[in-house]
Amino acid sequence: MDVVVNAATLDMLTVGLDTVWVLISAFLVFFMNLGFAMVESGLCRSKNTVNILAKNFIVFALASVSFWFIGWGLMFGNGNPIVGLTNVLFANGGVDEGFDAISWTRVPFWAKFIFQLVFAGTAATIVSGAVAERIKFLSFIVFAVVLVGLMYPVSGHWIWGGGWLQTLGFWDFAGSTVVHSVGGWAALAGIIVLGPRIGKYRADGSVNPIVGHNMSMVTLGGLVLWFGWFGFNPGSTMGVGDGSAIAHIAVTTNIAAATAIIAATIGAWIIMGKPDLSMIINGALAGLVAITAGCAFVSVEGAAIIGLIAGFLVVVAVPFFDRLKLDDPVGALSVHLVNGVWGTLAVGLFAVDGITGSATGNGLLLGGGFTLLGAQALGVVAVGGFTFAVALGVWSVLKLVIGVRVTREEEIGGLDRGEHGAEAYAGFQIID
Amino acid sequence: MDVVVNAATLDMLTVGLDTVWVLISAFLVFFMNLGFAMVESGLCRSKNTVNILAKNFIVFALASVSFWFIGWGLMFGNGNPIVGLTNVLFANGGVDEGFDAISWTRVPFWAKFIFQLVFAGTAATIVSGAVAERIKFLSFIVFAVVLVGLMYPVSGHWIWGGGWLQTLGFWDFAGSTVVHSVGGWAALAGIIVLGPRIGKYRADGSVNPIVGHNMSMVTLGGLVLWFGWFGFNPGSTMGVGDGSAIAHIAVTTNIAAATAIIAATIGAWIIMGKPDLSMIINGALAGLVAITAGCAFVSVEGAAIIGLIAGFLVVVAVPFFDRLKLDDPVGALSVHLVNGVWGTLAVGLFAVDGITGSATGNGLLLGGGFTLLGAQALGVVAVGGFTFAVALGVWSVLKLVIGVRVTREEEIGGLDRGEHGAEAYAGFQIID
Amino acid sequence: MDVVVNAATLDMLTVGLDTVWVLISAFLVFFMNLGFAMVESGLCRSKNTVNILAKNFIVFALASVSFWFIGWGLMFGNGNPIVGLTNVLFANGGVDEGFDAISWTRVPFWAKFIFQLVFAGTAATIVSGAVAERIKFLSFIVFAVVLVGLMYPVSGHWIWGGGWLQTLGFWDFAGSTVVHSVGGWAALAGIIVLGPRIGKYRADGSVNPIVGHNMSMVTLGGLVLWFGWFGFNPGSTMGVGDGSAIAHIAVTTNIAAATAIIAATIGAWIIMGKPDLSMIINGALAGLVAITAGCAFVSVEGAAIIGLIAGFLVVVAVPFFDRLKLDDPVGALSVHLVNGVWGTLAVGLFAVDGITGSATGNGLLLGGGFTLLGAQALGVVAVGGFTFAVALGVWSVLKLVIGVRVTREEEIGGLDRGEHGAEAYAGFQIID
Repeated sequence: MDVVVNAATLDMLTVGLDTVWVLISAFLVFFMNLGFAMVESGLCRSKNTVNILAKNFIVFALASVSFWFIGWGLMFGNGNPIVGLTNVLFANGGVDEGFDAISWTRVPFWAKFIFQLVFAGTAATIVSGAVAERIKFLSFIVFAVVLVGLMYPVSGHWIWGGGWLQTLGFWDFAGSTVVHSVGGWAALAGIIVLGPRIGKYRADGSVNPIVGHNMSMVTLGGLVLWFGWFGFNPGSTMGVGDGSAIAHIAVTTNIAAATAIIAATIGAWIIMGKPDLSMIINGALAGLVAITAGCAFVSVEGAAIIGLIAGFLVVVAVPFFDRLKLDDPVGALSVHLVNGVWGTLAVGLFAVDGITGSATGNGLLLGGGFTLLGAQALGVVAVGGFTFAVALGVWSVLKLVIGVRVTREEEIGGLDRGEHGAEAYAGFQIID
Repeated sequence: MDVVVNAATLDMLTVGLDTVWVLISAFLVFFMNLGFAMVESGLCRSKNTVNILAKNFIVFALASVSFWFIGWGLMFGNGNPIVGLTNVLFANGGVDEGFDAISWTRVPFWAKFIFQLVFAGTAATIVSGAVAERIKFLSFIVFAVVLVGLMYPVSGHWIWGGGWLQTLGFWDFAGSTVVHSVGGWAALAGIIVLGPRIGKYRADGSVNPIVGHNMSMVTLGGLVLWFGWFGFNPGSTMGVGDGSAIAHIAVTTNIAAATAIIAATIGAWIIMGKPDLSMIINGALAGLVAITAGCAFVSVEGAAIIGLIAGFLVVVAVPFFDRLKLDDPVGALSVHLVNGVWGTLAVGLFAVDGITGSATGNGLLLGGGFTLLGAQALGVVAVGGFTFAVALGVWSVLKLVIGVRVTREEEIGGLDRGEHGAEAYAGFQIID
Repeated sequence: MDVVVNAATLDMLTVGLDTVWVLISAFLVFFMNLGFAMVESGLCRSKNTVNILAKNFIVFALASVSFWFIGWGLMFGNGNPIVGLTNVLFANGGVDEGFDAISWTRVPFWAKFIFQLVFAGTAATIVSGAVAERIKFLSFIVFAVVLVGLMYPVSGHWIWGGGWLQTLGFWDFAGSTVVHSVGGWAALAGIIVLGPRIGKYRADGSVNPIVGHNMSMVTLGGLVLWFGWFGFNPGSTMGVGDGSAIAHIAVTTNIAAATAIIAATIGAWIIMGKPDLSMIINGALAGLVAITAGCAFVSVEGAAIIGLIAGFLVVVAVPFFDRLKLDDPVGALSVHLVNGVWGTLAVGLFAVDGITGSATGNGLLLGGGFTLLGAQALGVVAVGGFTFAVALGVWSVLKLVIGVRVTREEEIGGLDRGEHGAEAYAGFQIID
């Protein structure tokens, strides 16, 4: 029997498929919270495990509330090129009006909301690792609320909310800049205000490596993050209009991770004399961060090169930051900041106009000249300057008002006992 | 080229989308087995880890077989208001007839079956944690088979299988009562019959806290459960007829978890003086259990309040049960029983008629009067009374016939050695 | 409003749904890398943990590159009955021509590619566990590249790429032979060339059991694998043409795991006197491997029997290989080789013609005679002979050129220190 379809039926089906895709992607990105929690706690010492886990668990709760309360509105509300202004509170109660910049996706309002929420949560989690093993629990919590509720949405508005960078032709498909470098810049400011962990740098300036306590969890976390990235990047289509675009993005995402791992493994083998597991894992994350901006804009071959360079970058960035005495326990700067920047610029180099439908123009290496690269560089500088400056201010105020760093005794004794009155591995014999 | 669509083609596509959604949701709920295994084993002592993991692993195998053999038929088979009667064995060989109560979803029979199976499995897993560190392996296995094969399906029939509570206007969207409080009541009976672990309560009545051995695994488990809940609640639409309903449910689910975490953290900080990690995690689970009944029936704001109260409830419930000397190693009663009841009643308070399409009527706080709240309360009492009574009987028979509790020597030495001749962490120095 | 649908619109929707399903399934299969990493490292000693994790992490990176570079083309490229020949390099740049054998699925090229890639990666990971605790990191890496890039694609071409076994009527729905027994045969060759770990077999021929160091991780890995298998088997439909077929496959997959667990638990209880956790987990994996070939071809009842036998097989296979002094630290041969073979033959016994649409003919036990069983047996022998012979050659060349085994000192001291200069659990007191 042939039927003439009711338009509403077909629409319901189309939107239903889009919704399922966006929600499942959002769930995968949510799951990255586990990845971050395990990578961060595993790379630190066992005496700070409960503290790091608690931070990672609560940070998404706070992100959920603050992004609902105000962040969503500032980011996607209609307003001016700098910030959203209309109906900013409580996501306008779920009424899908006044958010023109995100009306291009057909999915229902709350699907848009939860997908964007899990991205906002990621930015806060990135900071968590960088300030680990010495930060006051309460200070981190307050910073995370400010980041997700106020800072992240503003720069996000510039790029995804109809703001000035978007107008200017800056392209960041899934957030190398919007999410990762923003988290990285906020982390850098925190590291500067906090100072290094006791014992990390010797009086003679050399580095005293502080090794992680549980590489099984770190590996688990790394694989969970890779898995979650298949929601992060392909899900950023926010619909299933064109299945081949989604498949393309899944493959560019994966190949960048793969080549970055290979580069980081070889790099570490050459520099450190051994294939270092934490470098292998951070290599994967570096490749994933770097391909996040361009996954929909570059070819599979381009993605492989972007990942390769990302893998080398992470290997040189880790000792670089140590030389600057910027103590980053988990390598968050090397992964998210350096490769967030690299991935954003790489769009300007490797973009293939319209490869999955977006009119980016060609990148420099594909004959497109400096137009795109220039816009990308401007965005990197603008977002970096804004985020770093504001974050530095927020951390400084926190330092004055409630203090950011635990006491020397607490840091040496472990934050688990000091902040939580608990230990992560009761019964196990542990020598710190 | 325009085409007139063949009706079968469109139907195939619609049912295909529904099937994909329901199956992926089922896989997420299946994955919650990992969450329960890690939360339960991590919150107990290392000497009982192998035992708890083995219970959690085998319980879903047993659930799969017993729900297939008889449970499905008792729950969804046509029959009377009390129980399903026709074609109860072996899910009627996959023939989708005689199951009128679940014919509202368009998905193929085996998709319905596996989705319902993973829910049944959850109920059994809840019991596992409550009776941990002292129960005989075989006794738990037998109880789990009876629960999934006979008990759960009967009360489930009342609510989801066309039984008397469903007729009466009792609403439980994804199972605060059907799954969680049923698991909780069965656990309570087990705790009473078993008695507390040796050393948990001192002669003077004070509590000797027994802390978990691996908070990394507990955190992992908590995040896996939260992730899986995105299958549990949104997936309970059992179809994609209305994408916006699914998105709404995802957001209510998430916000309840978030506010519950915040409430539990603050509550624990006030009562215990520290932000306690296991309370943070149990707070998340409490919020998720509480929103399970109402996720499709309340507003996002309502969900936030339900979660907030759930978070406070779990903090007060844990010491409450301890005062009653009901030894619950993982807080299963506080999470699943207390908040299963709370979430079911909350529907009667916060329901917004038709918010995602269901004709629940308004809850008390939205001007609907006591009709809905009364039905919810009746359901809570009826299901609780039935499950608790039968469970008490089953545990008592088990106690008589094969015994429920391991020997004193085995309990002190650890169930891993006693029941399995193994240890979880060979090579690690552990002092119990 | 009724509309006449544009054919391209309907096609876009249909292909979109197929793509979403295939990609999500691919992500689930990718996630199995985590499962393998945790099962393998957890079942070995803590001193080799970093090494095993590093192998498992990098192996998928290498698989991604080598399958992209050449593997895909050899497997699916048009050619002769033995191997693909046209456009073999770099997946023909994503141009979906010349791959007739896989043109039956409507999904975009890169969706086909990534789905097949995660399968190829699985084969390599299987080998990793079998050769653990004594293999040189570099040798494993080289072998994995050869396996994924050259060996796996050839036998895969025979069965899924339009080759001679496919023509002959050999059926392997999701890869009991293509993936699992291939990994198993390659592992067997590696075990033979490497020899057993120091101390595994005593001079009198008796076995000195070497127990795993972290059963929490093993359990986690087992549940992750089970979860991932819901992508592996149902996803192998590579489209959503018929939702009821997918649901059927999900249920056969799950019931086989369940009955295998029950059989392995009982079997271990009888033979070893205790319900052994590693046997329970390997039982689950055995059932899953065994149902992989036939999940779409057998009834739910048939699947239950296949799983039951698989569970018994794994319990007898483990001591069998030990009697042959084939030292397999994680039971990879018992799980993947023995049950890969069993599952492939089981199709010849239990197949129900057309149960989900495939014209397999009936198996022997359903009155189909020996035709199907004969083809299955031939495939088992052919693929086994080819893979084992070539793998033996490759391992032997590696032994000559770079050596396959670490030094005695390194093996005793642990590969973590020797190969990676690291330890997995810094701070923990460990006695090997």
